[in-house]
Amino acid sequence: MNNSHVPENHSRSQPRILIVGTGAVGGFYGGKLAQSGARVAALCRSDYEVVKSKGIQVKSVYGDFHFTPKKVVRNVSEYGSPPDYILVALKVLPEIDTARIIKDAVGHDTAIVLLQNGIEIEDPVAQAFPENEIISGLAFICATRTSFGHIEHIDFGRVVIGLFPEGPSARVEKLANLFNKAGVPCDVTEDAVTARWRKLVWNAPFNPISVLGGCVDTKKMVENPESLKLARQVMEEVCKIAEAAGHPLPDDIEQENIDGTSKMAPYKTSMLVDFESGRPMEVEAILGNTIRVARRHGISVPRMESLYALLKLIEKQNR
Amino acid sequence: MNNSHVPENHSRSQPRILIVGTGAVGGFYGGKLAQSGARVAALCRSDYEVVKSKGIQVKSVYGDFHFTPKKVVRNVSEYGSPPDYILVALKVLPEIDTARIIKDAVGHDTAIVLLQNGIEIEDPVAQAFPENEIISGLAFICATRTSFGHIEHIDFGRVVIGLFPEGPSARVEKLANLFNKAGVPCDVTEDAVTARWRKLVWNAPFNPISVLGGCVDTKKMVENPESLKLARQVMEEVCKIAEAAGHPLPDDIEQENIDGTSKMAPYKTSMLVDFESGRPMEVEAILGNTIRVARRHGISVPRMESLYALLKLIEKQNR
Repeated sequence: MNNSHVPENHSRSQPRILIVGTGAVGGFYGGKLAQSGARVAALCRSDYEVVKSKGIQVKSVYGDFHFTPKKVVRNVSEYGSPPDYILVALKVLPEIDTARIIKDAVGHDTAIVLLQNGIEIEDPVAQAFPENEIISGLAFICATRTSFGHIEHIDFGRVVIGLFPEGPSARVEKLANLFNKAGVPCDVTEDAVTARWRKLVWNAPFNPISVLGGCVDTKKMVENPESLKLARQVMEEVCKIAEAAGHPLPDDIEQENIDGTSKMAPYKTSMLVDFESGRPMEVEAILGNTIRVARRHGISVPRMESLYALLKLIEKQNR
Repeated sequence: MNNSHVPENHSRSQPRILIVGTGAVGGFYGGKLAQSGARVAALCRSDYEVVKSKGIQVKSVYGDFHFTPKKVVRNVSEYGSPPDYILVALKVLPEIDTARIIKDAVGHDTAIVLLQNGIEIEDPVAQAFPENEIISGLAFICATRTSFGHIEHIDFGRVVIGLFPEGPSARVEKLANLFNKAGVPCDVTEDAVTARWRKLVWNAPFNPISVLGGCVDTKKMVENPESLKLARQVMEEVCKIAEAAGHPLPDDIEQENIDGTSKMAPYKTSMLVDFESGRPMEVEAILGNTIRVARRHGISVPRMESLYALLKLIEKQNR
């Protein structure tokens, strides 16, 4: 079959994907999906001009590559007929209304993939598009947008995706195949919410501590005995909440996260990168929402609350 | 009586006082005691040349004044016959061995006044000089050494002094009279250890949060609802430990501290001033020792431990 003769929106072999947000995560995975043959467009904002004229250059431990989106838009209404997938890789911030941003591109058959950090971040989108399939996704990647149109990928890269809130999905399988075809390890889960709690075990301690502990990378956090202990205690708090919320995590997950972090190349967390750039941090997605779940279940999380309070204060100075 | 005819060390009306450490606290109170007629000398280190040649200029809300020590020494052995009081106003840091620094100036009748922050800070000095009277002191003052030989006093100034560990003392009364004579409100306590816990109610939250929350003054800490709440929770932890350690504090002490802080002029805590100057902070005196007391009594202090871990990490980056 010669794909060039098949109309785009009827192609089964070339799904149309709109990446919303081309930071490190959106740019990297958008480029990888394009390598697998998907027709990948990108919604850009501050980096629109650069990406439109030069695309995105990715310096990657997997091998450097260039990503030229099929189309670069400033607004989803410029995109055309609804894509098969909208892959949202925006920061999760109170001031970013994802449902509003993607609204005009969501068709009946569009699956909305939220490749984002945090807890209970799917609800606003799921409520806005009750008929659409929502795919919850997690990127386990150490990557940073070093400047507009430039991404540096220093470690990992696996993604986990699953239908929200749970269950099997053909669209999820299809997307996973695209990731795998491009060499991106992709696990499919039928329990996306538990997967999100699993990832939080890492994010909840290391993102805040990296900022509050004096702008430190992962190596410094795990080498300092006091901050390592605090990280472990915050992980324990996450596990207690996850269990109370009906998503128990494996017993060895704390140790696994600490061992993994000790072995990886020194890495600046996304929260630290945002902080150092004077950009808003995902404080609510990572800690605020989690603390609210803890409260609903009567779980005490004093360490997480301490980190949250300090982040709220430091963020006020930073913006 | 013409004091000039009375040998210094036999004078009852002109006690001889050696100030050890002429930061904001030592310089301010040394100058005030000199105004009351005491013969006040000063041990200086980094600021020796400046203080020796020009003395210390204090810009004070009480009225500016100048303090010219009777003698400025680099080492207590240069001081001469033992003073009536050694007033220690050094930072309490693991690397500062106060007993060793003052040793050669401590005579049989020398009272050692520790005008310092923190919990259980008297023990090393009390053990080194078991025959001497140890006076535990607390300075409730907002003052900063802005440069060598220059102190800025922006608010408060009261001191509380008492025999360590407890009981009445004629030497304490005499020193209190000197303070009061110079217009410095001085309360005498027969329960110095409880007084130290009382002061910690302020220091334990506000010093660490001022550093970790992005280098903020007191006004910013009490105006931000999250950090205000954290401060209150840390105060509650202090009260729990104090009670377990046999030093129960009044029920309204938290509110009193918050109200007082809300009313005072925006102030940079001493820990923040030290941090911003790249100097060591009193992390162990204020939090480390306190957490160890909590452990001895089986009291859980997760918020204080979180602040401690972050301070240990940030301090490593700062030095």
